[in-house]
Amino acid sequence: MNKTITLNSRPVGKPQLSDFKFVDEEMPVIKEGEILLKTKFVSVDPYLRGRMSDAPSYVPPFELQKVMNSGVVAKVVESKNEKYKAGEFVTGALDWKEFQTSTGNNVLKVDAQTAPLSNYLGVLGMTGLTAYFGLTEIGKPKAGETIVVSGAAGAVGSVVGQIAKILGCRVIGIAGTDEKAALLKSEFGFDEAINYHTTKDMTKAIAEVCPNGVDIYYDNVSGAVSDSVHANINRLGRIIVCGAISAYNGTSVPQGPRVEPFLIRKSALMQGFIVSNYAEKFPEGMKHLSQWLSEGKLHAAETVVEGFENIPQAFIGLFEGRNKGKMIVKI
Amino acid sequence: MNKTITLNSRPVGKPQLSDFKFVDEEMPVIKEGEILLKTKFVSVDPYLRGRMSDAPSYVPPFELQKVMNSGVVAKVVESKNEKYKAGEFVTGALDWKEFQTSTGNNVLKVDAQTAPLSNYLGVLGMTGLTAYFGLTEIGKPKAGETIVVSGAAGAVGSVVGQIAKILGCRVIGIAGTDEKAALLKSEFGFDEAINYHTTKDMTKAIAEVCPNGVDIYYDNVSGAVSDSVHANINRLGRIIVCGAISAYNGTSVPQGPRVEPFLIRKSALMQGFIVSNYAEKFPEGMKHLSQWLSEGKLHAAETVVEGFENIPQAFIGLFEGRNKGKMIVKI
Repeated sequence: MNKTITLNSRPVGKPQLSDFKFVDEEMPVIKEGEILLKTKFVSVDPYLRGRMSDAPSYVPPFELQKVMNSGVVAKVVESKNEKYKAGEFVTGALDWKEFQTSTGNNVLKVDAQTAPLSNYLGVLGMTGLTAYFGLTEIGKPKAGETIVVSGAAGAVGSVVGQIAKILGCRVIGIAGTDEKAALLKSEFGFDEAINYHTTKDMTKAIAEVCPNGVDIYYDNVSGAVSDSVHANINRLGRIIVCGAISAYNGTSVPQGPRVEPFLIRKSALMQGFIVSNYAEKFPEGMKHLSQWLSEGKLHAAETVVEGFENIPQAFIGLFEGRNKGKMIVKI
Repeated sequence: MNKTITLNSRPVGKPQLSDFKFVDEEMPVIKEGEILLKTKFVSVDPYLRGRMSDAPSYVPPFELQKVMNSGVVAKVVESKNEKYKAGEFVTGALDWKEFQTSTGNNVLKVDAQTAPLSNYLGVLGMTGLTAYFGLTEIGKPKAGETIVVSGAAGAVGSVVGQIAKILGCRVIGIAGTDEKAALLKSEFGFDEAINYHTTKDMTKAIAEVCPNGVDIYYDNVSGAVSDSVHANINRLGRIIVCGAISAYNGTSVPQGPRVEPFLIRKSALMQGFIVSNYAEKFPEGMKHLSQWLSEGKLHAAETVVEGFENIPQAFIGLFEGRNKGKMIVKI
């Protein structure tokens, strides 16, 4: 039998294990032109939380009692498609199933020689591209500018900070544990790191490590942490609104200080985005990310959870701050 | 004696007459190279409220017991500067005084033949340029797009709506009285107008008049009115944050729904600005505005209050919605 994971119920607040259901199905059989894929790595990402609700958004919601999906790296184990050979690896938005069929049109081949396969779900995948395009297209960083990154030890944040350093910025990271804050400096090369859980006056703490103010804020969290960065934003500052993990599990729209007064005072910009807005430029992004990775300038940090049965727990762990870098499930 | 108006106290909440003080001073005498100016028209603008507080902003605060200033059109009544002749008119950021001296370097000549003099404080002044550059540089309107303007019957809003119509947009205005709403359609050519004071469900009302959603929101007010427009913003929508009059008199930072979740869902942009960001392009803006005005495409609406002694009351009236179009004091 083939193991799958479906959406059992729409979460109220933080997702629970009971929102997912393990369902066995018949082992899939490929037809002419198809390939049989065995799942090797599964990406779990905060944005999936939005798809578990039925509110309208930029991607349609998951359907109840239907299989979940996300970024996956899979091995071709059988092929009736001349473009693919057994033993090759592919990546794409695939189902949470141990085995599945594909026409080959919804996946891309990836090369295990170029980089570890899991990297294609992280720094060489949507995560890396999200970091790259949000920072370069919206942030437009100039060497010498100061950037603050929230959720800095997470999948996107850790890549943002490293790219900003490559581009010559002064980089400050905000994370939720001392261990993560230490990691930001030791492993990812951030100039300064702040643990927001143990810092009483975040506005003051940011001001202290940003004596010239904040030119760019790459925001993965929203909420009170962001308020404290907004309070330090410079004239003509750019706020890249990538994620709002503090709001994803709320059961009502979170309230906070209105932003218009400071946006006017500082002629500042806030821009939301999703990575697919920049799909036409993905080759450019991949080229830079691959090059920096191969040159050792970019460190692909991953938290790897093992076992198909642990996909739901790994996903829930995102909201408990359990990942450093990209959260990946290895099957 | 020469009448002047000083800042007597910093307002707490809404400005009061007692925050201003009338002070008589000696009649000024010009030196070689100077001109003597007689104030003819004074501009009162919501942004002056910010300068009456001592919070840091993009312009320094007014000093207590020092004379106020704003946009003024004045007549040269005596000249010891070869560049100016008695009888000419000038505009600039000048003091709230009946008479004042100038070196001539802080003013520009204006031509009473080209347009009524008061227009240089409105549609041909900072107001018109604010409308033009916010709309074109941030909003980037395309023909056929839908734009909502708040504070639509005000100085900037009424010009924004007219320019958007010239550029081929569908234009919806939000104002605070039935009379203003009617004026938006009859006088300024808006397609639809909503009185937010008498509309129970603004989000629904906007949805009804914007069946294709809102592509651009030109915001002069912030607050609950803006929340209802944000709820209707389209993917890749642009929110031009020009003013936040609902917040200017608050004694604490106003709270509201956090914007990050919808900015991400819609890949939307919020950009604050002040008109001087575009100073290099002012000639381009003036060219368009003058042309549209002379072609009769742009209607320069003004609410004129008479008398130097009524400047404070005219300013306070801005926060009571007493103006349609630009609020001007004629001396």
